[in-house]
Amino acid sequence: MATTGKHLFTTLEADGTLTVSLEDVTFDDPTGSQVLVRMEAAPINPSDLAILVGGADMDNAEYSPGKFVAKMPKQANAASITRHGLKLPAGNEGAGTVIAAGDSDAAQALMGQRVSCVPGNAYSQYCMADAGTCLPLGDHASEEGASAFVNPMTALGFVENARADGQDAILHTVGASNLGQMLTRICREDGIGLVNIVRKSDQADLLKDLGAAHVANSSDEDFMDQLTAAIRDTGASYGFDPVGGGKLVDTAFKAMEHVAIERMTEYSRYGSNQQKRMFIYGRLDTGATILTPGYGFGWTLSGWLLFPFLQSVGQDAMDRMRRRVRDNLTTTFASHYKERVTLEEMLTKDAVMDYRTMRTGEKYLVTPWG
Amino acid sequence: MATTGKHLFTTLEADGTLTVSLEDVTFDDPTGSQVLVRMEAAPINPSDLAILVGGADMDNAEYSPGKFVAKMPKQANAASITRHGLKLPAGNEGAGTVIAAGDSDAAQALMGQRVSCVPGNAYSQYCMADAGTCLPLGDHASEEGASAFVNPMTALGFVENARADGQDAILHTVGASNLGQMLTRICREDGIGLVNIVRKSDQADLLKDLGAAHVANSSDEDFMDQLTAAIRDTGASYGFDPVGGGKLVDTAFKAMEHVAIERMTEYSRYGSNQQKRMFIYGRLDTGATILTPGYGFGWTLSGWLLFPFLQSVGQDAMDRMRRRVRDNLTTTFASHYKERVTLEEMLTKDAVMDYRTMRTGEKYLVTPWG
Repeated sequence: MATTGKHLFTTLEADGTLTVSLEDVTFDDPTGSQVLVRMEAAPINPSDLAILVGGADMDNAEYSPGKFVAKMPKQANAASITRHGLKLPAGNEGAGTVIAAGDSDAAQALMGQRVSCVPGNAYSQYCMADAGTCLPLGDHASEEGASAFVNPMTALGFVENARADGQDAILHTVGASNLGQMLTRICREDGIGLVNIVRKSDQADLLKDLGAAHVANSSDEDFMDQLTAAIRDTGASYGFDPVGGGKLVDTAFKAMEHVAIERMTEYSRYGSNQQKRMFIYGRLDTGATILTPGYGFGWTLSGWLLFPFLQSVGQDAMDRMRRRVRDNLTTTFASHYKERVTLEEMLTKDAVMDYRTMRTGEKYLVTPWG
Repeated sequence: MATTGKHLFTTLEADGTLTVSLEDVTFDDPTGSQVLVRMEAAPINPSDLAILVGGADMDNAEYSPGKFVAKMPKQANAASITRHGLKLPAGNEGAGTVIAAGDSDAAQALMGQRVSCVPGNAYSQYCMADAGTCLPLGDHASEEGASAFVNPMTALGFVENARADGQDAILHTVGASNLGQMLTRICREDGIGLVNIVRKSDQADLLKDLGAAHVANSSDEDFMDQLTAAIRDTGASYGFDPVGGGKLVDTAFKAMEHVAIERMTEYSRYGSNQQKRMFIYGRLDTGATILTPGYGFGWTLSGWLLFPFLQSVGQDAMDRMRRRVRDNLTTTFASHYKERVTLEEMLTKDAVMDYRTMRTGEKYLVTPWG
């Protein structure tokens, strides 16, 4: 018995025309370990936005019901050459109800249950997912489980990574984001030192209410003093940044070096021997990352992505992390949404112009059935 | 019996006044494992220049015999706050004759021999060095052994590092430098793939004469094609850059990603999973390092310094590397010099204005006894 529902596709043509639209897609019955999920909630994460709107001119796009057509500027289009002509789904993660299941025990066990899943085509009324990647939500609503994967596993991944590298403190450059709030709770629970950078005083207040001990506000005049004091207190020389562009990583390295230099008894022209480590895990700012001299040669900057990380830690660690998410879904790993939109509404100008700004703490949730 | 000779010192005051001058320094007789070396040749490496002239205004400096006084611009001076008021020696490495030795067997064994050494104050007529850090030069002249440490050990270090990380190919962004030429010979001897970037066609010719198989000339219009072809042929996704500022590292990452994307069968919005690794080991350009988006998140950039690297590999590896240098001093590890200057001449405007440009293959050699 085939099942048909609305499904979002995004296509970038070689000439720079970006078309995002809804189409009816028909799914056959699931087989083996597959489950068919009626999707009820899916967040719009920064990692979804690149493929939805990227650098396209959304101000002057043509919007019609269930569709927009926009122009990708020349440079952004040239950088996207590998997706030209491909009709791609979107939506990394979401949650819904399993309405059909393949023959495998794992699939059958999920029949009728609400699950969180990571299908890659979550902006749709139905998705096919592998039972092994689904997290049963028990009594939780789909909305509570919609963001159970990307942010929670990323935040837990930071702590896993830090521990594997012998670190007991972390710096996070966007402390007040949904992910930053989770990280604040995780670090508090696990006794990991955390230095949060925020841009506004209300964000600092929010984190302090969550128990954050070290918050540096970049809009304050004494920001660098706040930051170095927090690094001094925690010993953080290891951090994560979702912004990418600009000088945020540079600022973190400078502050870490400043603290390391304070501890040196002898001058070295090469700076301190303190190893400073930062990871860029997003591109909220698609401008260039600027690294100035001034913190010696004892530093390393890497890109960081969730899926390669999860492959590197293996199934056992991943299962342990997912259990922790499931057991603390509405506390440690709670997400908050600014707006709920249907599939049609997410393609309107009002919605696009708002969610594409990716303002801290203003996440959208797509509810495909309204 | 004390020994007195001319010795260079460099002092940066808090107000930005940089004074570099010669003074007489008296050394007591060496004790224990110490040896007193009559210095006969010392190269001016880029790593020495920072402390000699840094970002100072050398055009308008006051030059007098055995001395110059220059102004450090405000920003460069602020970045050098940790050395304010310190009277520092200069000259990482050099070679000379052991004229007195402490009681230890190692020190006594060097008595009367020519040695290469790394005293940190090589711009002087006499240096005290530890016997364990000296490399006996046998029949080689001091000039042949003057650069036996920094460049050779760095070039060998790149290969050690690459192998430890499972790599069999290296990219080097300044192929025609003294170090680049050594690296070309080492990689040829060791069967390591090498991608050399150069800026001029005569540099490309020079490297090809040394047997370099892959040279990309950044002044050619089809530079990126040359570079990607070389990366495709060698599989290099691991490289070293002494420039630091600008987009050279960015260019290397882009070319590595370009080749990795060619091999992908399925589109990924995150770019390839190919891990791309670059190290910045110098700051020939003290401007900011610019990293643009466009090569996904599978990349890592680190600073790289010789001395921490040597500490990390341990004494056995270091001894093995030094033996290889000693046994191939005038072949694999030969250095070339553009000019020879005395201690007085190295402080004249003509000399300073020339060697501070650090043009590829135009190294100066200081000969303290003329």
